[in-house]
Parts: sequence; structure tokens; C-alpha cells
Amino acid sequence: MGVTALTREIDVLLVEDSLDDADLAFRALKQHDIPLGHRIVLARDGAEALDLVFPESGAGSEQLAARPKLVLLDLKLPKIGGLEVLQRLKSDHRTKLIPVVAFTSSREERDVVDSYQLGVNSYVVKPVDAGGFARAVVDVATYWLSLNHPPHIAA
Amino acid sequence: MGVTALTREIDVLLVEDSLDDADLAFRALKQHDIPLGHRIVLARDGAEALDLVFPESGAGSEQLAARPKLVLLDLKLPKIGGLEVLQRLKSDHRTKLIPVVAFTSSREERDVVDSYQLGVNSYVVKPVDAGGFARAVVDVATYWLSLNHPPHIAA
Repeated sequence: MGVTALTREIDVLLVEDSLDDADLAFRALKQHDIPLGHRIVLARDGAEALDLVFPESGAGSEQLAARPKLVLLDLKLPKIGGLEVLQRLKSDHRTKLIPVVAFTSSREERDVVDSYQLGVNSYVVKPVDAGGFARAVVDVATYWLSLNHPPHIAA
Repeated sequence: MGVTALTREIDVLLVEDSLDDADLAFRALKQHDIPLGHRIVLARDGAEALDLVFPESGAGSEQLAARPKLVLLDLKLPKIGGLEVLQRLKSDHRTKLIPVVAFTSSREERDVVDSYQLGVNSYVVKPVDAGGFARAVVDVATYWLSLNHPPHIAA
């Protein structure tokens, strides 16, 4: 916008088109003792996810619009699919090292293998029951925000 | 040895030169309710780790000697270092998709970034106290053996 924007502070970028699932995930994260203060931002489709991370001006600008500490990525998404989002994140040197966890109802081997081939850090199948789903979200977030040691990528 | 060997069944390949740390890790895994029956194998250095995974005849043979479900990789290792082991695993199509977690006392940013650049799935710093260390081993193993969905790589 003609002004040098600061990189937006996002801890978890949740890319999820189902509002039910997103709501369940948000509530689970807020209820649990994850060392938060974490800013969780929802993108409803792949295009919105990419817009949140990459600067408007595209590859010309080095600074990202946001550098989440974790991307929790549904695969079946409108507009731009999760695998393409993953491919974009993992093939750009500015975003390559951001941990991305596929969080999806798909157990299709093609999705699993494609995700790993594209460099997903981990692939987690959404449990179908609400309790299991909430626990999985919390376990994934706890692992990646507390136990995993991220690279401190220079801005 | 002239006989077509079956792929050895290993669940967790622990690559660790410290017998104290290895012992602590083994005991923590056995004590906890990880859905095991898991076969945990220790390699004391990087050369041993590669020998356990890759067939004797080298790249000519397609079949691996072992295909662990998880490699827990110390970085400071004798003979062949952890980063080289990681590079070998992540650059061979037969082993590229095996989850590798760096499990190391190093917090050096160079080690962290190099590991992610080489394709490590996750990087966990060993807690210095025995209790924290045991919990971290169990949390890492639980995440990768229970929650994470691995690709079922064709043998």
C-alpha cells in the first residue's frame, strides 16, 4: 500500500474451509494449556492462506506478510488446494522452513505420499469424533509449538 | 551375503553415541504406553545407522535392509555425522519419506537451519534433566508413531 508493512505476527495459520472444524480447533486450543498467547489465524481457502503469508507484490519483495510458526493445512480446499499451498510454501526459500502439518480427513495414499514428497513435515488424519479431533489439534499444536525447535528465520 | 535378505523390521532407529542417553531413551519408551510391540534398534554412530538401512550392495539394490517408521537422530556422532546421515536419508528416493527427527543437545542455529534445509521433519532439543529427557522421548515417539500418518512406502 505504499507503506512498508511490518510482518504480521501469526503463530498458527489454520487453513480450513469447514467452519465447524475451525471452531472446534479454536476452542480446543483456547481450552488447553498450550503455552500460548498464540495468535491463531484462520484462512478459509488456499488463496486466502497464500495471501496471508506472501506479500502483495509477490516474489519481488523479500519480506513476508506473515511468518507463522506452524501451518495446519487441510488438503481439500476451495480455490487453491492444500497440496498447491504446500508446494508454494516449500518451494520458496522464505517459507520453506516453516513447519507445515497436513491436517485432513483424507487417508488416500496419493494425498499422503504427495504431501511428503512436497515436503510436509507431518501428516495427521483428523479423527472423526469431536473429542478425538480436539485432542489431536491440541497434541499437534503442543508438539510443534513446545517440543519442536523451529529455525529462527531472519525476517 | 549372497542370500536375498528380507527387509529387517525396525520401528524406531535410534542413532545415538551416548550409551547413557540411549539407555534413558529405551527405558522411557518401554515404561510408557506407546502402542508398541515396537522394535527399537540402536546405532552408535552414523556409519552404523546407514549400514542398518541401506543394503550392502549399495545403490544397485532397490530393497532396503531396514525401513524404520521413525529415525531419532543425534547430530554429533562419530564416523559419519548426523547431518550427513540426514542428507543420505533425504536424498534417496527409497528413504526420503521416512520421518526423521533430530534429537540433539545442539541449539546452534547452524545445526537447526541445516537440518531443516536437508529435510528433517522435526528438530527437538534434548532436555538436560533426566525426567525431561524421558518425557521428550516419549512425546516424540507418541507423536510420530501414533498421531502422524506415515506413507506406506512400497518395499
